[in-house]
Amino acid sequence: MQNKNSLATPAGLKDYLPQEAALKRHLENKWAELFFAWGYQEVVTPSLEYYHTLTRGLGNDDLSLHKMIDRNGQILALRSDMTNPIARMVASTLQSEPWPLRFFYLANVFRYEAELQKGRQREFYQAGVELLGAPNSWADAEVIALAVEALESAGLTNFEIGLGHVEITRDLLAILCEDEERQQQLQDALTQKNYVAVDNLLTSTSSREARVKELITRQWRNNEIINNLQEVADKESTLEAIAHLENVLDVLHNFGFSDKVFVDLSILRDFNYYTGIVFEGYTTKLGYPLLGGGRYNKLLQKFGFDCPATGFALGIERVMAALPWSTKDITKKIDYLLLGKDYSLLHSKACELREKGYSVEIDLLGRSIAEAQKYAEKKGISEVIEVAGERK
Amino acid sequence: MQNKNSLATPAGLKDYLPQEAALKRHLENKWAELFFAWGYQEVVTPSLEYYHTLTRGLGNDDLSLHKMIDRNGQILALRSDMTNPIARMVASTLQSEPWPLRFFYLANVFRYEAELQKGRQREFYQAGVELLGAPNSWADAEVIALAVEALESAGLTNFEIGLGHVEITRDLLAILCEDEERQQQLQDALTQKNYVAVDNLLTSTSSREARVKELITRQWRNNEIINNLQEVADKESTLEAIAHLENVLDVLHNFGFSDKVFVDLSILRDFNYYTGIVFEGYTTKLGYPLLGGGRYNKLLQKFGFDCPATGFALGIERVMAALPWSTKDITKKIDYLLLGKDYSLLHSKACELREKGYSVEIDLLGRSIAEAQKYAEKKGISEVIEVAGERK
Repeated sequence: MQNKNSLATPAGLKDYLPQEAALKRHLENKWAELFFAWGYQEVVTPSLEYYHTLTRGLGNDDLSLHKMIDRNGQILALRSDMTNPIARMVASTLQSEPWPLRFFYLANVFRYEAELQKGRQREFYQAGVELLGAPNSWADAEVIALAVEALESAGLTNFEIGLGHVEITRDLLAILCEDEERQQQLQDALTQKNYVAVDNLLTSTSSREARVKELITRQWRNNEIINNLQEVADKESTLEAIAHLENVLDVLHNFGFSDKVFVDLSILRDFNYYTGIVFEGYTTKLGYPLLGGGRYNKLLQKFGFDCPATGFALGIERVMAALPWSTKDITKKIDYLLLGKDYSLLHSKACELREKGYSVEIDLLGRSIAEAQKYAEKKGISEVIEVAGERK
Repeated sequence: MQNKNSLATPAGLKDYLPQEAALKRHLENKWAELFFAWGYQEVVTPSLEYYHTLTRGLGNDDLSLHKMIDRNGQILALRSDMTNPIARMVASTLQSEPWPLRFFYLANVFRYEAELQKGRQREFYQAGVELLGAPNSWADAEVIALAVEALESAGLTNFEIGLGHVEITRDLLAILCEDEERQQQLQDALTQKNYVAVDNLLTSTSSREARVKELITRQWRNNEIINNLQEVADKESTLEAIAHLENVLDVLHNFGFSDKVFVDLSILRDFNYYTGIVFEGYTTKLGYPLLGGGRYNKLLQKFGFDCPATGFALGIERVMAALPWSTKDITKKIDYLLLGKDYSLLHSKACELREKGYSVEIDLLGRSIAEAQKYAEKKGISEVIEVAGERK
């Protein structure tokens, strides 16, 4: 039990002191600008939603939701992502808008994970986009390209985007075994990149099975996976999904992103609302993805509106952690500390400097010039100015 | 009970569609810039705190806190202001920093009011500053002047700041009646501006009582209240508080804010942590304050750190509601809609225009030029460009 005199924040919840907060704002401003340049407009949804709204999208009771009981006995929960709230918002008020809808958000989300893993918080910040009403491969390519641009604009260079396609992977798993329960076990093992478990589940040694296993367990560069997929696919719908993936890859290659993108069909993401292309962003510096996203064509149906959609969310803290130190410290310094005995004079001088774009602090504690210089040095203030003179 | 198929947000919680979200971001960026120009640096605290942390500052069980039980059986609550979390943060990690500390925040806060009044939400957004470690009148004047600048920078012109001083008001109430219970009743009546109740509680007709009553129930311009206060005051500490108020008024008058500021000793604010100067910002357009703040010299003690402090918070939605329409619509338009059959060409053209600072949307739905023009008109996109040509 927490000591009542403790000043700690609850586990998984943290403060951002000025340096971190400045970096966070800097990145958020960059992304707001970038997303808008791509035609995306910001939306803000409430932190709390009805529990049934969030589970409706997630498809089941979600243990990671922070629940609370309203005073009218209704169950509310803190949002665990922004895709569900935006789906609810679009279905409730924007059904008659012309497609496509392009939205971005910069928001905190909450997940109560029983075991807090390294790099994870129970409240964390996301930047993301949703592109609703466009079913084709251009739309998928657009959000993936925007994800690449978002990481580049943050100052990251050393990253890659892994692409999967949940429908293709599920069709391949069905080729490997007919039993649905085993398919699910295989899928779980794949998601966890537990290739020993995958091996144990796959006991046959047919060459087709070996080929399919290779397709779902390794990374593929350029378009080399496409022919291989076409050769093992045995359903029309799988071939369509492969063609969709090929189109997305073609567009991304034409954009010049070949070295940034690979295919990895073990990427399935942990939200079960994905229906097609899924993707994650990685950097060698972190053991978890920087961003994740994909197509979710069935989610809005659950809110009563049939609308294809795709999008991504990036973890702001994760990008912050992945940045090289040189990029990370963008803390803006206070430019001047003004010192003097006449507050009106100090204020006039401060106004004059602030108009020129400087950040100016006025000494409030009657410091001597020596004390002020010591203080300025400790706080990283560039210059101390003594403002003397008679009141005007 | 809420219908499970409803797509509504819970009462008092709302979505911000692009136009409102753009105005919110515009104001937040202005304020972030302004606060930093005055030497204030941003901090971010978690949305959830231990319930005992929040009530420690608020001084009692607060029915307006949104509570929730952690899976370890601990009681958490959504923050209802930013002053308490920042006090907790400063006391826990910044005790050895040189004074003063100047922080700003742009944050959502939560208050569960049983009856939702007009213009109020259960989650709402605040911009504010805290100035810690400076006990003198310059510090009070600084935050009040910054509040004036914040409202002006938002585009508001028609507003005023009302100044009170809780210590002076309480001393005057003690002159009016010795009984503490009646003092509290008087204070409650004053806070509610219920002058009929004030009259009913004050039955004596002595001229001193009439004079004190006038002091606490009307607005005073310039410094005219100071002499009057000095004449009725009977305690040294009251006279010191009056001198402090006079200094603050002098500084604000020297800043040229005489027409923006008045004294109203019935202003007591609804947080009981205030100890000196308190103030509120008003505009004729709204029936509730735009902003509120004041000095809280005893709050940090409750977190084990003796540190004088002052600050204010402004209600972002309230400022948004008070803005004239001409100022309100700052929604940035999408500049171009690009149309064509070759996505790589479209992407190149889009990159070129985005580099120049334009916002560019690419048509994803294969619209004809006529359809595209209709869509652009409906969405307020300035221009449609057809991008034709062979792939390079």
